[in-house]
Amino acid sequence: MSILVVGSVAYDSVKTPAASPRESLGGSATYFSLAASYFAPVGVVAVVGEDFRREDLGMLKAHGVDTRALAQRHGKTFRWAAEYSQDYNEAHTLDTQLNVFADFKPVLSPEAQRPAFLFLANIDPDLQQSVLGQLEAKPRLVAGDTMNYWIQGKRESLRKVIGSVDTLMINEGELRLLTGEANLVKAARQVLRLGPAMVVVKRGEYGAVCFTEGNIFATPAYPLETVVDPTGAGDTFAGGFMGYLAAVGDLSLENLRRAMIVGSVMASFAVESFGTQRLASLSMGEIQARYRDFWRLTYFDGTGESLLPRRE
Amino acid sequence: MSILVVGSVAYDSVKTPAASPRESLGGSATYFSLAASYFAPVGVVAVVGEDFRREDLGMLKAHGVDTRALAQRHGKTFRWAAEYSQDYNEAHTLDTQLNVFADFKPVLSPEAQRPAFLFLANIDPDLQQSVLGQLEAKPRLVAGDTMNYWIQGKRESLRKVIGSVDTLMINEGELRLLTGEANLVKAARQVLRLGPAMVVVKRGEYGAVCFTEGNIFATPAYPLETVVDPTGAGDTFAGGFMGYLAAVGDLSLENLRRAMIVGSVMASFAVESFGTQRLASLSMGEIQARYRDFWRLTYFDGTGESLLPRRE
Repeated sequence: MSILVVGSVAYDSVKTPAASPRESLGGSATYFSLAASYFAPVGVVAVVGEDFRREDLGMLKAHGVDTRALAQRHGKTFRWAAEYSQDYNEAHTLDTQLNVFADFKPVLSPEAQRPAFLFLANIDPDLQQSVLGQLEAKPRLVAGDTMNYWIQGKRESLRKVIGSVDTLMINEGELRLLTGEANLVKAARQVLRLGPAMVVVKRGEYGAVCFTEGNIFATPAYPLETVVDPTGAGDTFAGGFMGYLAAVGDLSLENLRRAMIVGSVMASFAVESFGTQRLASLSMGEIQARYRDFWRLTYFDGTGESLLPRRE
Repeated sequence: MSILVVGSVAYDSVKTPAASPRESLGGSATYFSLAASYFAPVGVVAVVGEDFRREDLGMLKAHGVDTRALAQRHGKTFRWAAEYSQDYNEAHTLDTQLNVFADFKPVLSPEAQRPAFLFLANIDPDLQQSVLGQLEAKPRLVAGDTMNYWIQGKRESLRKVIGSVDTLMINEGELRLLTGEANLVKAARQVLRLGPAMVVVKRGEYGAVCFTEGNIFATPAYPLETVVDPTGAGDTFAGGFMGYLAAVGDLSLENLRRAMIVGSVMASFAVESFGTQRLASLSMGEIQARYRDFWRLTYFDGTGESLLPRRE
């Protein structure tokens, strides 16, 4: 198996200034796997309830997502309800019903114990650690995400997981909370000292920054005239990022840069609709075109000698 | 005269989590002219009091800044005191003493009535308009800045000025306040409809975005491990931006992109010290090196055909 994601599948009811659709398909594993599916084979380890809609399962399968480890349990699928502020920058959770997700214990099948790429989406760090313990071979890249809730409630478990992943993917605000450091560069360096070779900081509408030992790569986000629903943008970014790396196979710095853009491209599509609508209906042509748009957005001539005029 | 700036010269007392130096040389015209001086001849139209320090005047002159229109009046120089939050993102004004700046009436000398480039820094829009009225020839580029105070207090005058400049340079939050539009792209397009051919949105630690009719260029800010004092970053950006354009003379899209980076480079230096210390002591080698650092920070291969792998 090329890529494995362990995370949540949920039904989201999101209220925005524009509309309030009920029970859109969501969850970290959903967004991640859909985004990754455009580039490489991806399998999902997650849990849903008896109410999981047949068409949602069908949609994932139609994207080639391996859903054999998407367990169906007695009870209802995880529900999340939230409201976005006018500028879409903050989601206020209105209601969380864990349902079958409350007892989620990820179990990897023998095949799933040897993924080339593993993404530990935002779940209890003890569960993330248990997944790492089930691996039979070291993946080429393990990335993990987390959130405020675990940073505040399970700091020690989380530190252990962070020490075990190759890449931490984290929101800017959560990075600051995790490290207690307001300066982004210092905060990222602090995480690198905990173990990961790479920290990817997600900044929402401001883009993303990738820190490795000797390199920093930063990209703005794609400037969208219409943002419909920012839910899942981070997981979609991670899916595009890891999907691209899995497809090219080679973790050179050049490819990491391209992967950062592919992640940004996929996230920019995800927020253009509620739930997974847009993300689930892309063509490679659209993805390519937006990748080139990113290049036009950020390109400048930086190669010239004596580019800057001399002072008169 | 190549570039003219009309704005303020001040003594700033800025309190940050790190230190609180008193009465550093500041003001929009100071930061702008110092930054621009590395690239092209620049003159300042501003006012100072009897207490203006001889060494500050000497420092400006040493950078080749034309200070003949830096009027000295009876009274004290403009004073501003502020405190920055822990993350340096917000300045809370503690005290403003306009002093001689209260009666500032910019008068352009015959020579100054024909600048090639004009920057109307953040002053009363009626004064900005009076400067435009004194021009004897249309400059190649007129850029203007503004702030909350004028957006709220002199909206009609400000609209008139915005309709008369080629470029509006504005903070992101102030753009939203001006347009009442939360979405950045829509807000920028709204300003373009008022008259300017270009809007440059300054986003602090998140960089800057430049909007023209058919193009958007975005750059992250330089990731600094130590930010000492963000005061003047926006005016420094404007100085680097216009200084570079004045030096190359040609307002092609390619040069506008380079100018955005030069502005970002100069701003990144400005915030590394209190007041103008760092900005006033740069070498062209340092500027060139950081320009190349920006390229390394943002470069990715976006030119390849079929860059993205096909879905399997």
